[in-house]
Amino acid sequence: MMNPTMMNPVADKPELAEPHIGGWLASLGLGVEYTRSAGNSLYYRDAEGAEVEVLDLVGGYGSTILGHNNPDIVDYAKSLLDGGTPVHAQFSKHPYANDLAWKLNTILHREFGVTEHYSAVFANSGAEANEVAIKHAEMDRVLKIGAALAAVEANLDAVAATGAAIGATAPLPAAAGGIDELVAAVRAANAERAATPPVYLAPEGSFHGKLAASVQLTHNPGYRTPFSAMAAQARFVPLERTDVIAKTIEAERKTLLDLAVDGGVVHVVERPIPAVSAFILEPIQGEAGIRVLDRDAVARLRDLLDAEDIPVIVDEVQSGMGRSGAFFASSHLGVRGDYITLAKSLGGGIAKAAITLIRASRYRDDFELVHSSTYAKDSFSTQIAIRVVELLEADGGEAYRLATRQGEKLLAALRSLRDEFSDVVKEVRGKGLMAGLEFHDLTGSGSEVISEQAAGGLIGYLFSGYLLREHNLRVFPTASATNTLRFEPSIHITDEEIARTATGLRALIEVVRAEDGKTLLG
Amino acid sequence: MMNPTMMNPVADKPELAEPHIGGWLASLGLGVEYTRSAGNSLYYRDAEGAEVEVLDLVGGYGSTILGHNNPDIVDYAKSLLDGGTPVHAQFSKHPYANDLAWKLNTILHREFGVTEHYSAVFANSGAEANEVAIKHAEMDRVLKIGAALAAVEANLDAVAATGAAIGATAPLPAAAGGIDELVAAVRAANAERAATPPVYLAPEGSFHGKLAASVQLTHNPGYRTPFSAMAAQARFVPLERTDVIAKTIEAERKTLLDLAVDGGVVHVVERPIPAVSAFILEPIQGEAGIRVLDRDAVARLRDLLDAEDIPVIVDEVQSGMGRSGAFFASSHLGVRGDYITLAKSLGGGIAKAAITLIRASRYRDDFELVHSSTYAKDSFSTQIAIRVVELLEADGGEAYRLATRQGEKLLAALRSLRDEFSDVVKEVRGKGLMAGLEFHDLTGSGSEVISEQAAGGLIGYLFSGYLLREHNLRVFPTASATNTLRFEPSIHITDEEIARTATGLRALIEVVRAEDGKTLLG
Repeated sequence: MMNPTMMNPVADKPELAEPHIGGWLASLGLGVEYTRSAGNSLYYRDAEGAEVEVLDLVGGYGSTILGHNNPDIVDYAKSLLDGGTPVHAQFSKHPYANDLAWKLNTILHREFGVTEHYSAVFANSGAEANEVAIKHAEMDRVLKIGAALAAVEANLDAVAATGAAIGATAPLPAAAGGIDELVAAVRAANAERAATPPVYLAPEGSFHGKLAASVQLTHNPGYRTPFSAMAAQARFVPLERTDVIAKTIEAERKTLLDLAVDGGVVHVVERPIPAVSAFILEPIQGEAGIRVLDRDAVARLRDLLDAEDIPVIVDEVQSGMGRSGAFFASSHLGVRGDYITLAKSLGGGIAKAAITLIRASRYRDDFELVHSSTYAKDSFSTQIAIRVVELLEADGGEAYRLATRQGEKLLAALRSLRDEFSDVVKEVRGKGLMAGLEFHDLTGSGSEVISEQAAGGLIGYLFSGYLLREHNLRVFPTASATNTLRFEPSIHITDEEIARTATGLRALIEVVRAEDGKTLLG
Repeated sequence: MMNPTMMNPVADKPELAEPHIGGWLASLGLGVEYTRSAGNSLYYRDAEGAEVEVLDLVGGYGSTILGHNNPDIVDYAKSLLDGGTPVHAQFSKHPYANDLAWKLNTILHREFGVTEHYSAVFANSGAEANEVAIKHAEMDRVLKIGAALAAVEANLDAVAATGAAIGATAPLPAAAGGIDELVAAVRAANAERAATPPVYLAPEGSFHGKLAASVQLTHNPGYRTPFSAMAAQARFVPLERTDVIAKTIEAERKTLLDLAVDGGVVHVVERPIPAVSAFILEPIQGEAGIRVLDRDAVARLRDLLDAEDIPVIVDEVQSGMGRSGAFFASSHLGVRGDYITLAKSLGGGIAKAAITLIRASRYRDDFELVHSSTYAKDSFSTQIAIRVVELLEADGGEAYRLATRQGEKLLAALRSLRDEFSDVVKEVRGKGLMAGLEFHDLTGSGSEVISEQAAGGLIGYLFSGYLLREHNLRVFPTASATNTLRFEPSIHITDEEIARTATGLRALIEVVRAEDGKTLLG
């Protein structure tokens, strides 16, 4: 690899903050330093010092539903600072945390037509919120296994006391030493069975963060496999194949051993224990290429999981906070999570806010005694999150209507390009202000630049460099499907900005159609 | 458990944000709502609406080395907001990130007397920074195993081509089917051996966060064991027993199988592969009761780990940023981490800043391609962190001198209490502005309240309630050793505030000595 410090000769000090990425971005023309942001725009200064405006369709990977530096949020953040907000007041009363939880509950009740309460646990990033959910789900599973073990223990003593003869002992070997040996063998087998790692299920394409455990819920093998030995594994399933999911669950079944007396004879029986800790899904898969889950498939999935008592974690880190045209994108699908995770736009584009909602019927309040975070539930990020929710809910939900209306216009513009260039554009997908435009496979392009970047899985970043350089548009591919460009602007995107986006994309598509790698590289 | 909503009859809505903790805090008199903070004080309003000042010795669990709402930091945060700082500009040039990395490198080079560079990876919390370190260390381990596998693969083909006779095959069974069967058996064994989970080592008492993998590095079984099946395990070792640590490493050794030809005969040999991913330690253990690691023991440990090529992760999340009297508490111990993690005070009491420094000789730049976080490396928290570092370094390091000087006064005041009440106070420990006062075991107290809370492991919180109520002091126990009270004020703590702390503690100790549970409960 070329030393990235060589690529940046003007810097007097070599790059130490992720130098490899920095060099790679520079090589694609993406090594721009943005100096300010506002609304849907980021700004940099050109070589002459003149400010250049860039229309940002990335939106902080879905973090700026209200725009960059939304004036309401900025003013509110400053007022919090002016008022000496007690950011660090752990282990005291946080009424604003309850206020945020209630605001989210009110919306949840409205969008799903339910009254069940959800408790709130606070975190600092979307990945952390997902880890709170999987930790809680695992604690629930472990407590259920513990209860099952206790029931077996009580029963073992009772059975031993009967003095009954020993019958069939499978799957254990015959107990030549009598009942005490058999009980000991059951206990030893159960200790091992109870400690079996949890299994998580997730649809193919899932993305749920990159912390050590959450990255195992992230389908992309490039992100996940270097760390596979660190944490419990997920099984990735085809969402629409309920039969395959059922078989996957079947294959994971775990039991404890127990003893039963039947016809005066002791034999070994099996008691089921939970093996699958949770099923996690994004209502609109982001990094897989902006894919709205199929409503019917999700309904079948929910029925199956309910029958198996497997909780559902709905990851709304990217799809939530109004982007889909409702606060919860899952409300369009009619799937209400046992857990719902929120982050990104919840921080209003400024703060690092994240929350995990856990439905009352699943909530284990002992979780609060074992989980905490110094930075979480702070007055700054929590109150900004409240403000975000208030702004989304203002004027009878005008933000949701805007997301729907402008989202439809954006999708219509993208679909029009697909119709016109169906040889280049494969598919347009999305809902509200979460849209994706997928290119056909370009590994066979007559342009070596295009075919090589496509084969290397980086073609979308080449497109990003072109769009930034030639059209002042900031557009990135999705992380795990880099031939899909993502569009996640704020609700304030104008018709003109949508038209500008379409113009830039049209030019890009024409360059791709012309197999003009030179123009892409710049 | 009593329904916590019953404890809070004035609220019109039941508590949804960690209700269990809320009820428990209220029952101890800790359910105070702080409405603002400044310097070393938090403020709440009493029943009449009058503002009550509380001297805060908790300091956000070590997050406010510069005080709550430090005016410099607040002004700077506001100026960032006023300037439209581009918080969300992922995948662009972040010169401030490099600036922060360089500032930290400059300090590191000065304090450790070295010139090696450290690369920087950004995160959103201390736990995340530790997970970055363990992910990177694991990636390094996996890549080394991959290289060892590749070398074996190349050798297997070469050995098979020799046509030599087959000799000893242990630990594999005899290969009746010849060399092809033996090679297949070696490959199958290696696939399993290469996938063995990593092992982490940590001193007893360690605390490194509560995310799914980092919580397994946290010694307290209450925090860790419900989640043991989720992630790779740590072995907790007595730091001063180098012999025990050596044996622990010995017991974890892993090998790949390979074939060698010796005297014209093929036999199976073993090639070592790394098994221990990293050793993680806090230079001053926080949650274990404020315990400064022994310098000689750490030196012996470092020699052992260097000989084994096991990297050291130095967790400075709490001890760093000047609290010890130097930026890196590990510099007092003379142990320079292969990884160094920072958070808490790095955010200046306002932002959520966290960073993982990785030394050049260990750094794998491919890590940047597989790890990222939407919220991390943002312009807001990163630039605030720069400001924090600048303030700590100002006036030739006056902040470090203040931490040393005021820390010595604080420790002297605590030691004076220990000397006077040696029947109640067991030990005073610490360095700089990170101090702990440990009580003797109180399970035998004549006061039922005291003995029960001591037996339940919550005695420190009972003391906290008393100190807050009677003395307007905010003092908490350490999380995993609740008979130790922690003191982590800012560098601006005054002599008068130290005296006020000592006065409150003296009163507490006298109440404990008098076995006066009634006064503690209030």
